[in-house]
Amino acid sequence: MARPPVRAGRILPALEDRRGFLKRAVALAGGGAAAGAAGRTFGQDDPAILTLPAHSKSLGQPVAARGYGSPSEFEKNLQRRESPGLTRVSQASVAFAPLQGLFGIITPNGLHFERHHQGWWDIDPRQHRLMVMGMVRAPKVYTMDDLMRLPSVSRIHFIECGANTGMEWGNVAVPSVQYTHGMLSCCEYTGVRLSTLLDDCGADTKMGRYVLAEGADGSGLTRTIAMERALDDAIVAWGMNGEMLRPENGYPLRLVVPGVQGVSWVKWLRRLEVGDQPWYTREETLHYVDLMPDGRHRQYTSIQECKSVITSPSGGQTLLGRGSYNVTGLAWSGRGRIRRVDVSFDGGRNWRTARLEAPVLAKALTRFNVGWTWDGGPAILQSRAIDETGYVQPKIGQLRAVRGTRSIYHNNAIQSWQVAASGEVSNVQVD
Amino acid sequence: MARPPVRAGRILPALEDRRGFLKRAVALAGGGAAAGAAGRTFGQDDPAILTLPAHSKSLGQPVAARGYGSPSEFEKNLQRRESPGLTRVSQASVAFAPLQGLFGIITPNGLHFERHHQGWWDIDPRQHRLMVMGMVRAPKVYTMDDLMRLPSVSRIHFIECGANTGMEWGNVAVPSVQYTHGMLSCCEYTGVRLSTLLDDCGADTKMGRYVLAEGADGSGLTRTIAMERALDDAIVAWGMNGEMLRPENGYPLRLVVPGVQGVSWVKWLRRLEVGDQPWYTREETLHYVDLMPDGRHRQYTSIQECKSVITSPSGGQTLLGRGSYNVTGLAWSGRGRIRRVDVSFDGGRNWRTARLEAPVLAKALTRFNVGWTWDGGPAILQSRAIDETGYVQPKIGQLRAVRGTRSIYHNNAIQSWQVAASGEVSNVQVD
Repeated sequence: MARPPVRAGRILPALEDRRGFLKRAVALAGGGAAAGAAGRTFGQDDPAILTLPAHSKSLGQPVAARGYGSPSEFEKNLQRRESPGLTRVSQASVAFAPLQGLFGIITPNGLHFERHHQGWWDIDPRQHRLMVMGMVRAPKVYTMDDLMRLPSVSRIHFIECGANTGMEWGNVAVPSVQYTHGMLSCCEYTGVRLSTLLDDCGADTKMGRYVLAEGADGSGLTRTIAMERALDDAIVAWGMNGEMLRPENGYPLRLVVPGVQGVSWVKWLRRLEVGDQPWYTREETLHYVDLMPDGRHRQYTSIQECKSVITSPSGGQTLLGRGSYNVTGLAWSGRGRIRRVDVSFDGGRNWRTARLEAPVLAKALTRFNVGWTWDGGPAILQSRAIDETGYVQPKIGQLRAVRGTRSIYHNNAIQSWQVAASGEVSNVQVD
Repeated sequence: MARPPVRAGRILPALEDRRGFLKRAVALAGGGAAAGAAGRTFGQDDPAILTLPAHSKSLGQPVAARGYGSPSEFEKNLQRRESPGLTRVSQASVAFAPLQGLFGIITPNGLHFERHHQGWWDIDPRQHRLMVMGMVRAPKVYTMDDLMRLPSVSRIHFIECGANTGMEWGNVAVPSVQYTHGMLSCCEYTGVRLSTLLDDCGADTKMGRYVLAEGADGSGLTRTIAMERALDDAIVAWGMNGEMLRPENGYPLRLVVPGVQGVSWVKWLRRLEVGDQPWYTREETLHYVDLMPDGRHRQYTSIQECKSVITSPSGGQTLLGRGSYNVTGLAWSGRGRIRRVDVSFDGGRNWRTARLEAPVLAKALTRFNVGWTWDGGPAILQSRAIDETGYVQPKIGQLRAVRGTRSIYHNNAIQSWQVAASGEVSNVQVD
């Protein structure tokens, strides 16, 4: 729908989004529509209902014109986008998911966020192998065939990069939710439980307290997984939202470690090793550690704690005028299910409980919705999630008091969006 | 993965599928692998693990190389496919979803089945309107903006064409599950409840016992919905698996009527009318009626009754050799949740209860899995679903005894797949 740029981001390029189009659409509809009223009564002078469009008079496109389909031409601006300058090369960078334009909890595979350490490959599954070795009775090498013949499971889980919302630690108000929270996606994964594979190889799960996972890309990315997690709900997955994994997401095989930061969901998985201590690999020592105020590092801080964000309205969008809105967002917790989400329209003084859309699943995104009538004045929108353990999503000030401002990872603070009298929404930090 | 044709279908073109590749992959792996053994032990002469592949030595592709991604090149044969000759023109035809290659319950949007009456269009959402009229206090016209400001919901539901598996009524054994059951998909839909819209217009829900839904395409397709269903769980939807509807699936607006046959899920929805009796439109009188043995028609038989099918192994696939398999399939009911799925390997004499993957949702697909060890002999595989009302999926003979053989619609019989000693799987009818 050829969306106009809504506003220039402060540190990132202009963002085009759905609300931009909405504003224009209302302008087109024009006429005597009461601002904020849902629908308009008959007889209004709306050109769109006074002429019969071509699509109501003629023969359309045939079935299977696209054996594998793609979105409407009017949606082509809704894309995952790289944040230029974030890293030196685009093979070791991030493309963020456009959360501002997404609905529900399932992330379509074409818009799933990407984070690579040495670029992505489209690996021939006939040549791909998974080796299981170390403290196991019977080390084995599996083909994709072998794996697909084992008992399989399908489960919906979120994946979030540990560095998601990382810029906000340092008081950098990234302009849009795509760039603040877009290293977040949620899919239905299908594969074999890691515990099934470990059992198949006779892993020593008492002395062997850890599992190393290694990827087949050039970075040879390796991460240590605690054995209790490996035996709990981890999956060696090939399926993603009904089809095979996308190349950018590890085709043909990746590790799924529910609740744990994305770097441990090793893509292009080629090797699992059972051992009796952590490996302290590069991505566990140089990176993915949290620099604390006293100069020490927190290490192996894997779990993505309870967090939420309002995705619409959000930074870079513009409200259409005063009146009623459906305020919507996402909540998630690496510890289990979301119990409740509260939403504030006045920067945290008053809170209203949002509706949670079913199903509410453990370690999956949960969609929340709440009605709001905008009176045309300034407002600050926030969401605050509570998970089934009783943990309450903290304010940024609370987090900084404990963790300082130099962490890159594990920022799960409440996000604030400021609505100006013009209707423009922007990212602000509210302690 | 350049899948070879597995076998020529009896009435349809050759089918390429995932199991085809699997067979070849094992042949490539070759060597001393014990047939059916999961994995192979170290030291085996496997060229794929003796050389370091290019992707482990070099820089890969950058992020956002594809702002909107697509599947692996090795998956390009997994497509929705038209059944040639099924209708006179491809604008009024069907493209079937490749169930044999899908996992879990979510159908990726690119592979969602299509059924059009006069072809599909990519309608400009800025120009699209929805009119609500008839027995309402305040008739209204909604823009997409107006709709998106109303309270929204997200829900996972299956959609099945009433004619799915229709060829089997007449003892035509269509060769593959793509063509027997492929008018079936399942998505997370987002939109506004139909009851919210009816309330917004002050619909007379006592005298107004019916709602007419009309599409904006050239066929002007119209269907009557009973008011109790309209007020229950029907949705006027714009979102589908996290993004906007695809053009082939009604972009920018379609009706979602959970549990009801697909024709009532009117695409490119432009008009809703409240009335006091059914409309008896063309698609309710000439088509979508069930011809009974005594020459009468059943009309308004909308609900898709409890049904299931094994998707792998299924017709057109070939087993890799004796040994263990994960047998998997889908179950669903227009009446609510699936309670249990039983699987038989001997044509219905003995049954084993399959594992159901969570979440098990009302009027959604449910994925089942069950282990099976193939001894190399002939076998007949069947699945039988039971829903929460206690209804048991019938045999084809039981259905024919009541409904005859001339129905096109609402065949929910147990599907039988025959495994030959060669490993080839084919469609057979077992009364």
